[in-house]
Amino acid sequence: MLDEIRQQPETLAATLASELRRVEKFRALMGRRKLRLVVIVARGTSDNAARFGRYLIEITTGIPVSLAAPSVATLYGARMNYKDALVIGISQSGESTDTNEVLEQARKAGAVTVGITNQPRSAIAGIAEHLFLVRAGREKSVAATKTYTGQLMVLYLLAYALGAKIRIPDLEAIPDLAASALTLETEVRAMAERYRFMHHAVVVGRGLNYASAFEFALKLMETSYIVAERFSSADFLHGPIAMVEPNFPLFLFTPSGPTWPAMQEMLTRLRGLKAETVVITDRRNLAAANLASRVISIPARIAELYSPIPYIVPAQLFACALAVEKNLDPDRPRALSKITRTM
Amino acid sequence: MLDEIRQQPETLAATLASELRRVEKFRALMGRRKLRLVVIVARGTSDNAARFGRYLIEITTGIPVSLAAPSVATLYGARMNYKDALVIGISQSGESTDTNEVLEQARKAGAVTVGITNQPRSAIAGIAEHLFLVRAGREKSVAATKTYTGQLMVLYLLAYALGAKIRIPDLEAIPDLAASALTLETEVRAMAERYRFMHHAVVVGRGLNYASAFEFALKLMETSYIVAERFSSADFLHGPIAMVEPNFPLFLFTPSGPTWPAMQEMLTRLRGLKAETVVITDRRNLAAANLASRVISIPARIAELYSPIPYIVPAQLFACALAVEKNLDPDRPRALSKITRTM
Repeated sequence: MLDEIRQQPETLAATLASELRRVEKFRALMGRRKLRLVVIVARGTSDNAARFGRYLIEITTGIPVSLAAPSVATLYGARMNYKDALVIGISQSGESTDTNEVLEQARKAGAVTVGITNQPRSAIAGIAEHLFLVRAGREKSVAATKTYTGQLMVLYLLAYALGAKIRIPDLEAIPDLAASALTLETEVRAMAERYRFMHHAVVVGRGLNYASAFEFALKLMETSYIVAERFSSADFLHGPIAMVEPNFPLFLFTPSGPTWPAMQEMLTRLRGLKAETVVITDRRNLAAANLASRVISIPARIAELYSPIPYIVPAQLFACALAVEKNLDPDRPRALSKITRTM
Repeated sequence: MLDEIRQQPETLAATLASELRRVEKFRALMGRRKLRLVVIVARGTSDNAARFGRYLIEITTGIPVSLAAPSVATLYGARMNYKDALVIGISQSGESTDTNEVLEQARKAGAVTVGITNQPRSAIAGIAEHLFLVRAGREKSVAATKTYTGQLMVLYLLAYALGAKIRIPDLEAIPDLAASALTLETEVRAMAERYRFMHHAVVVGRGLNYASAFEFALKLMETSYIVAERFSSADFLHGPIAMVEPNFPLFLFTPSGPTWPAMQEMLTRLRGLKAETVVITDRRNLAAANLASRVISIPARIAELYSPIPYIVPAQLFACALAVEKNLDPDRPRALSKITRTM
C-alpha cells in the first residue's frame, strides 16, 4: 500500500499524458450535444471518486449530476429514462457487476456512455461506448490508492470535455502537489502513534472534499478497522454533532476558498466541545492550524479546485501508518478481496 | 419523543386525507409536462426522507432523481441548468436556509418547484410554487419522528402524481401498518437493555429502506450518542465489512421482495463473522429470523413498496428506549436545537 501511495506523482502524470488526446476528441463530440444530465455509477472507492465527480461537474459546468443507485435497475428492474444523459461508470477492475449492468441498460436506452477503468481488457471496455484509462499499473493492495487519484484525474478531464473552465497546465501541476504531500510521510507516521487506541472517528469534508471525507473514512475502515463516519459540515450540525464528547476524534479537510467559512464555524463549535480535531490543509490556509488540535499541512499553496488529489495523500499515509501501528496488515484487510461482485 | 412516535397512525391518516385533493390537481398539471429530472433538496432527517423519495420515484416512474448538494449553489455559487426539472425541497420547519436557497434559484431558473413542510406559514411556503403539508401538528422533540413519516407519505403522493402505479387504498392502509408496528413497544423496550453499553453500530438497508438505515442511524446518533454508520449491503461488502469482529452490532431492515436476496447474502456473511445482528422485518419474511441474532417482526404482512413507514417505527422506539436506558433525555440531545441553519 505504501509503495502504491508513493507512486502517485508518476501514475497521475502518466494518466494525464495518455488520456489528454482522447479527451480532446470527446470534447469536440460533446460540444455538439445538449446534455441535460450526467449520471455516475460506481461502488466502493470508485464511488468516492464518483462523489468528487458529482461536485466537480456541477460546480464547473452547471449540468445536474445524479449518483446512480444501482439497485433501482439491478434489483427492482426499473427502466430509467436516460434520454440526453451522459452515464459514466467507474470501476478499478472493470468487473463490477452492478456498475456494468447500469451502464449496459443506459447504453440501450440511448445514453452516451463512458467507462473509467484501470483494466483496458475488462468487461467494462466492451460495454461503454467511450473508454478512459487510469494509467496506474497493477494495484496489488486491496485498499485502493493510486487508482482513486487516477480516477479523479480522469474526472477533471471529463469536466473539461463538458465545458468546464479547467486549465490543462493546472492539471499538469497536480503530480507535483501530490509529491509535495508525500514529503509528509515521516511526520504523518509519527502522528499515527497517538491514535493507536482509537476505535471510532468522524471525517468531515465539504464540497469537492466531501469525497475526500468518504475516501479517508473508507481507508480507516478497511485498513485499521476504525468505525469511521463521514459527513459534510452541514449534515454534521443537523444531528450527529450530539455524539461529540471531550476527546472525540475528528479529521477535517480544510482548504482555503469557498468551503472554509463553513469549516471554520464547525471547528469553532468542536473546540467548544473539547473534541480532538486533526485538519488536513495547505500553506494557503494557515488559519486552520489555530482552531485545531493537530495539523497536517501540505508544504505548497493549493487552489481549492485542485485540492482533492493532494489532500487525500496524507490521509492514505495516515491510514496505512495507523494499520501498521495497530499491528495489522494494510495490504490484506480481513474479509475483503480485490474484486467485489454484488447484487 | 415517545408520545410523538405513538401519534403516527393519526398524523399519517391526517396527512393523506388533507393532501390527496391537492395532489390530484398537481397530477393533472404534471401530466402535461415532460419532466427529465427530479431534484430533491433537504438536510438532516428531511434528507433521509429525500433519500427514500429518490428510490421511490426512480423505481416507480423511471425519471432520474438527483439529491441536490446544496453547497454547489450556496458556497460555490454555481448556476444549475434545471430546465425540464422538478425541484422538491423538504424541511420540517420550512426555515432551512440552504434548502430554501436552492429552491429559490431553481424557481428562477424555470424549474417546477415543490415544498414539503410541517409549517404552512414558514419561509418555504413563499418560495415554492406548489406546497404540500405534513399534518403532524407541532413536533416538540428535537429528534424528528412523526414529521419524517409524514414526509414519506407526501412523497408517495408525489410519486403518484408523477405517474407511479401507486394505489391510494394501499396508502390508506399505511396508518394501520404503523399502528401494528407500535404494538412492539414493550418488546423493543425490553430488548434495548441488551444494548446499554453499545458505543458504535452499523445500520444496513437496501433500496427503499436504504433511507431507513440512514434515519435509524441518525436517531441513534442524536438520542443515544451511538457512533452509528449506515450502508447499503452492496457498499458494506465493498470495504467496511473489514471492521466486523465477533459481537459487532448491526441492525438490518429485511423486508421480503426485491432486496431480500442481497440482504440474505449479507446476513449469511455476518453469521460467519459471528456478528450480532438485529433484523427489522414483518410476517411476510419469516426467513430473516433464522439468520439473525435478534428479530423485531411487525405483526402484519407488508408489501416491500409500503414497508419504509412501518419499518422505521420500531427503530424510533428502539432509539428512544435506548436513550432512556442510558439515562439520557431523548427529547433534548446535547448540542442540538430544533431549527438548524447551515451555510
